[in-house]
Amino acid sequence: MAAMRTETRTYATGSDAVVLDLTRDCAEFVRDEGDGLLHVFAPHATVGIALIETGSGSENDLLDALERLLPADDRWRHRHGSRGHGRSHVMPALVPPYATIPVVGGRLALGTWQSVCLVDLNVDNTERQVRLSFLTSS
Amino acid sequence: MAAMRTETRTYATGSDAVVLDLTRDCAEFVRDEGDGLLHVFAPHATVGIALIETGSGSENDLLDALERLLPADDRWRHRHGSRGHGRSHVMPALVPPYATIPVVGGRLALGTWQSVCLVDLNVDNTERQVRLSFLTSS
Amino acid sequence: MAAMRTETRTYATGSDAVVLDLTRDCAEFVRDEGDGLLHVFAPHATVGIALIETGSGSENDLLDALERLLPADDRWRHRHGSRGHGRSHVMPALVPPYATIPVVGGRLALGTWQSVCLVDLNVDNTERQVRLSFLTSS
Repeated sequence: MAAMRTETRTYATGSDAVVLDLTRDCAEFVRDEGDGLLHVFAPHATVGIALIETGSGSENDLLDALERLLPADDRWRHRHGSRGHGRSHVMPALVPPYATIPVVGGRLALGTWQSVCLVDLNVDNTERQVRLSFLTSS
Repeated sequence: MAAMRTETRTYATGSDAVVLDLTRDCAEFVRDEGDGLLHVFAPHATVGIALIETGSGSENDLLDALERLLPADDRWRHRHGSRGHGRSHVMPALVPPYATIPVVGGRLALGTWQSVCLVDLNVDNTERQVRLSFLTSS
Repeated sequence: MAAMRTETRTYATGSDAVVLDLTRDCAEFVRDEGDGLLHVFAPHATVGIALIETGSGSENDLLDALERLLPADDRWRHRHGSRGHGRSHVMPALVPPYATIPVVGGRLALGTWQSVCLVDLNVDNTERQVRLSFLTSS
């Protein structure tokens, strides 16, 4: 039996705050597996992974809510890069940089409206990595 | 060796915002297992899973905090269903739709005051599913 | 094949709100493993685990943000212990008491600036436990 299967992928996130849908890549990664758990992990201190609906406005609703809860102003002790950068370092405490998703018969057992999304408020990094790992008990 | 054991259960969540304690079902699900990890997953875009204390007021404290942080008003782009529905689609970014709990000797290794709870602000859905999965290394 | 390896450790958290870096202990725990998943779990109803940068001010930025989002005042139904204690019982819904981290070749696959941190707003408990567990597919 092989050890945990794991690999990293690189995503262009641009220079604006962004919610990026990773569902297709996640689905493709587990396609030849049976039952187990997909682990999605962003090895970055200013990125979160969220399971939300995409395509109906919730991406921008989330970015607006985060702007209200963690404003991009001068209140933050952590200062370097663009104004408000410190808020990006608090975000992963609220939107964690990982998610776990059941896989059943090689398919993500997501609900109809759930997508796996990378959340990145950081305007100074334009490229991000995501590590996908698959665990099973068998 | 069997693959990951997994099953779904259905819960009545009514037509009000609700925090529903799932601990008893989770405990029962792992009772015949050894050591491993319980994965609790809600396949819904407007549900979260939270590990909090129940029975001392924290359920309503949480619902009040979520009403303050994500108000049920007209600010949301995502619009359909009841007023404020869009906030329910942002919630899973902050209260994720999964949780992972260690299992030791067939018992949830929860703290004394921790319960496994479904959090649902959505007043338009009265029934929800939860997938329980058990993983072990052995 | 051994079952999931798991153990608990005890940490002094003092009588102030605190963000405590656990990364060194986590790294040591998985040092002799191959590829798998580290599960970090706090068996407490008022503790969270966050993956954030430490040493650049983000610990206090996080505590300030939590004070703003969940104020230590008299609004909470859950009342016992110090003023504002009820907010500590809501926090784990937003900062969950667990985290999952990939392990590759016996090393935490964290990003350069990520640390594994215990977050504790509770001023009435001065000692906390953390359970570390390692799962692999092999």
